[in-house]
Amino acid sequence: MKEIVYPYKKDSPYSYAAGAYATIELLATRPEHVERVVIHSAYRDTERLLQLCDEKSITVQHDDRVFKRINQKENTYVLGIFSKYFCKLAIDAPHVVLVNPSDMGNLGTVLRVLAGFNITNLAIITPAADIWHPKTIRASMGALFRLKVEQFASFKAYHERYSLHKMYPFMLNGEKLLTLESCPRAERYSLIFGNEAAGLPEWFRHVGTSIRLPQSEMVDSLNLSVAVGIGVFLFASANGQI
Amino acid sequence: MKEIVYPYKKDSPYSYAAGAYATIELLATRPEHVERVVIHSAYRDTERLLQLCDEKSITVQHDDRVFKRINQKENTYVLGIFSKYFCKLAIDAPHVVLVNPSDMGNLGTVLRVLAGFNITNLAIITPAADIWHPKTIRASMGALFRLKVEQFASFKAYHERYSLHKMYPFMLNGEKLLTLESCPRAERYSLIFGNEAAGLPEWFRHVGTSIRLPQSEMVDSLNLSVAVGIGVFLFASANGQI
Repeated sequence: MKEIVYPYKKDSPYSYAAGAYATIELLATRPEHVERVVIHSAYRDTERLLQLCDEKSITVQHDDRVFKRINQKENTYVLGIFSKYFCKLAIDAPHVVLVNPSDMGNLGTVLRVLAGFNITNLAIITPAADIWHPKTIRASMGALFRLKVEQFASFKAYHERYSLHKMYPFMLNGEKLLTLESCPRAERYSLIFGNEAAGLPEWFRHVGTSIRLPQSEMVDSLNLSVAVGIGVFLFASANGQI
Repeated sequence: MKEIVYPYKKDSPYSYAAGAYATIELLATRPEHVERVVIHSAYRDTERLLQLCDEKSITVQHDDRVFKRINQKENTYVLGIFSKYFCKLAIDAPHVVLVNPSDMGNLGTVLRVLAGFNITNLAIITPAADIWHPKTIRASMGALFRLKVEQFASFKAYHERYSLHKMYPFMLNGEKLLTLESCPRAERYSLIFGNEAAGLPEWFRHVGTSIRLPQSEMVDSLNLSVAVGIGVFLFASANGQI
């Protein structure tokens, strides 16, 4: 059995899903990348998990010591260890692009929102919060494994590769107000969102059609995952993804 | 000067906004409830704050020891101490109703979303996360002070008081699918959301018209603040609040 170092390290080729729910998501969607499943002796509801591991020929390790080494706040009794893998975005599907997201909790919530609305292709412009960190995976409730996530060193690198997509950067001063009636129709579209604190740099106003959400004077901006949720819901509704 | 006990306690008649941004929100919107403002010697950008306190005749305390006693993770150099106050919801405005919200971070995010879309009346059915806790206020970025928040011991107590509002409970198995075209129009409406983990109890299907958001099979539910964001955005758009 390969030696894996706990707790998680960013430069490790491995990460893990913590908890039975996320581990079952992992086994159901990415069995080829699973290294093994670790189960704590206090875990009771083993039947479904063991059956799934058996079906997919995945090694099960019973070892309580591992759980002491992962430095977690919440109690976890199941870990799904996997090798990090590479995805390429589908060229004919809608994308969401996150530019320098910095918070793992927000990133995980966004992953779950995208899966919820059938948007399964996510580009991340680095530097960014670690998509493979167990905290991100936990916040996504395992939705990470349902998506194709591809990282790019710059927005330019992304844009050149997917130049046929219509680009919609979401900005506080965007030129087009997003309403129920006016949501753009496009076969391939990219919804682009900036960092939680800083938003998108001003030069994104010259990328495609910049979009602003209606918003009162009472707050200076919306929470990132809420803005993504509303943007994705409207575009996915108007363009037939949900 | 009144003696206030730090850190915050739920049964205290006082709470505080932590940080300059939330404190300025407090001073701008609820000056009559402000007890005093405490400033740390390391805080530099004092001018606007001191001017605002002067305008509103609010006591300023320069005292670093207070900041050691509030048990915070992040560094804070400004506290706005206030007396908790009571609000009554407007009878002729749309409401959001949160039934037993349990997480202060989510509650704060929801407060900010509501202020962002001009929905300024929030009912909370207890037991619930503490609306006055500094963590909730921080997550709301001070939006709490912009809203009327009223707590009720049961949904029945709320419903009897606001019986002229059309009730829309959001449920995974709601009878009416919410789309851009079909969003209900109503002069007075109440959008009702359940607890993060459990959702609304099944009997809410018999309260008004239950609503479901379109959602893929890939996730079992959406994040509470995202669901509130989408619901509020659609209703506020369709009914002229934004």
